[in-house]
Amino acid sequence: MHLEIAILGGDGIGPEVVAQSIKCLRSVEETFGHSFTFKKGLIGASAIKKTGSPLPEETLKLCKNTDATLFGALGLPEFDDNPRAKVWPEQGLLKLRKELGLFANIRPVKVFPSLVKQSPLNKSHVQNTDLVIFRELAGGIYYGQKTNDEDKNSATDTCTYTESEISRITHLAFKSARSRKKKVTLVDKANVLETSRLWRRVVRSIAESYPDVELNCLFIDNAAVQMILNPSQFDVILTDNMFGDILSDQGSVIAGSIGLLPSASVGLEHAMFEPIHGSYPDAAGKNIANPVASILSMAMLLQHFKMNEESDAVVAAVLKSFSKKIVTPDILGSSKYGTNYVGDFIADNIM
Amino acid sequence: MHLEIAILGGDGIGPEVVAQSIKCLRSVEETFGHSFTFKKGLIGASAIKKTGSPLPEETLKLCKNTDATLFGALGLPEFDDNPRAKVWPEQGLLKLRKELGLFANIRPVKVFPSLVKQSPLNKSHVQNTDLVIFRELAGGIYYGQKTNDEDKNSATDTCTYTESEISRITHLAFKSARSRKKKVTLVDKANVLETSRLWRRVVRSIAESYPDVELNCLFIDNAAVQMILNPSQFDVILTDNMFGDILSDQGSVIAGSIGLLPSASVGLEHAMFEPIHGSYPDAAGKNIANPVASILSMAMLLQHFKMNEESDAVVAAVLKSFSKKIVTPDILGSSKYGTNYVGDFIADNIM
Ligand SMILES: CC(C)[C@H](C(=O)O)[C@@H](O)C(=O)O
Ligand SMILES: CC(C)[C@H](C(=O)O)[C@@H](O)C(=O)O
Repeated sequence: MHLEIAILGGDGIGPEVVAQSIKCLRSVEETFGHSFTFKKGLIGASAIKKTGSPLPEETLKLCKNTDATLFGALGLPEFDDNPRAKVWPEQGLLKLRKELGLFANIRPVKVFPSLVKQSPLNKSHVQNTDLVIFRELAGGIYYGQKTNDEDKNSATDTCTYTESEISRITHLAFKSARSRKKKVTLVDKANVLETSRLWRRVVRSIAESYPDVELNCLFIDNAAVQMILNPSQFDVILTDNMFGDILSDQGSVIAGSIGLLPSASVGLEHAMFEPIHGSYPDAAGKNIANPVASILSMAMLLQHFKMNEESDAVVAAVLKSFSKKIVTPDILGSSKYGTNYVGDFIADNIM
Repeated sequence: MHLEIAILGGDGIGPEVVAQSIKCLRSVEETFGHSFTFKKGLIGASAIKKTGSPLPEETLKLCKNTDATLFGALGLPEFDDNPRAKVWPEQGLLKLRKELGLFANIRPVKVFPSLVKQSPLNKSHVQNTDLVIFRELAGGIYYGQKTNDEDKNSATDTCTYTESEISRITHLAFKSARSRKKKVTLVDKANVLETSRLWRRVVRSIAESYPDVELNCLFIDNAAVQMILNPSQFDVILTDNMFGDILSDQGSVIAGSIGLLPSASVGLEHAMFEPIHGSYPDAAGKNIANPVASILSMAMLLQHFKMNEESDAVVAAVLKSFSKKIVTPDILGSSKYGTNYVGDFIADNIM
């Protein structure tokens, strides 16, 4: 198979971890006889510094005209520290998701048996966790009307959802549950928010056409507790953009390191694959960033194109790195292995 | 001192746990020579069932005309399951907070040394946790304009904040930090939300008048992770209504049981004291609910009226119940003690 892949490294550790995924893709090419072309684009703080825009036109075109995008991470503290700035890195990612129509962000949270000890949670609480979060990615408070009135000293964000926005991701979530443990948990705040009440109404009515899948509903505050106390109760979690952001970062802790968890952002025409971790500028350039989240995101890319055997081979190589303890220091404090070494090891073991 | 206290038990386990606080207040009366009058009011599902309204006029009047309110919990699943309902229990609590002008919800999270083992987090992660969350309680998306258009199949929630809303709770948070570890962490999503950017602007400028207090800012997704990985890094957490709801429920897990954590909701004229747990209808009437969160909320009430010695005596009695293992089953699975017994023990040990 031939694929053209847009590579957006972004800021901080983004470019370093994506570089390891490229190594692994080269190895997949060789082992399985595919051909991948990589085309780099600018996004985030580095794009602002070079072009003034967090998402240059060229980058957007690149992502639209390639088969898929591999994204690293973005954001730099110098932008967070200026609440009066008119342009900041995250706008690039938000615009890219919107323009590519990526409405579902799929975030699997799995506890690898060899890493159970890494979890800050007691073993009994994390064992057997295998859940996937379907986070709505193109709507909600991220994209509603915003105002920031310096004279009136007031600001507003609007959260809007329509039935069709809810419906398309709900079908994805139920279809996924069918091939898993047949359980969907809708996370919302229906005792306070009207958008949540719409979610409940739409999701309940769609659930009727999946009688083999059980649906239950949890308030976000309770879900945040259950995610720590008893994560293995979950199969598919369905939630909106903001709650999904919080819950999935939190879920990452279960796995032992936020440096482990991948995600796929999909729409009708495009797909992008990105680790759920941030840009960690403090770690950038030090060869300590964990490349596994990016590599597993790349494995989701292979799966997206039905290269299941290839995807399994990548995951197997990652598991081998765990069992051989070829891991970065976030996983094993005493580890001497850096980003590059771990990337090389995984690439060499894709077979 | 004479105090008139409004008692709103609410739904589920609410009335049972509040009954234990009343016992303890009777004991405080006797031991310290005070006089407390209790006046009961209806709220939540039980109020809807009896009067049609989740907050009858009478209850509101009661709370306005007493010195303080002791609140239990509210909510019943039969209301959550009907997203088309026009009236539901939580509206009562939200209206009460608004009408009483309770703009700050103060939620201390402490790990009691004798209960460290209870935490689902590894010991090293929770030891030394002693933080307090200042959650804005009268604004944000809880109270913004809402629409739910069945024809258009769309719904909207609006999150608005003004400088003065942010400013009043910020001052409380900084003053509290001054008497603690001198650190305020603002939790927001300033890389996405305009309201968060206003929070950053206002909080940064207020911080200048507290040069002895350190301010740092965290995104909510990262804060949810840090709350599990390293809660002892926090002193005072300052955040908006929605993020505060999620983060404080999550914080409760650190302490070992959501049945342990109290809160105070304060305004300029009124104050209300409530456990942070919900109504757990499944546990209602079974004499298994943990009364400690309500009793510690009552201790915050005493402190609010400068009865520090009295408040300390209540906390000491609670600690004694821990060390004697007179606790409900949420704390010790094998425990034979019920709500009433634990309440009696604590009341008897206030001295
Ligand atoms: C960088 C930020 C805008 C983004 C989000 O909130 O969606 C990130 O936290 C994520 O989860 O991908
Ligand atoms: C019952 C509900 C409306 C309430 C809230 O979200 O504020 C509760 O979760 C709380 O935290 O006190």
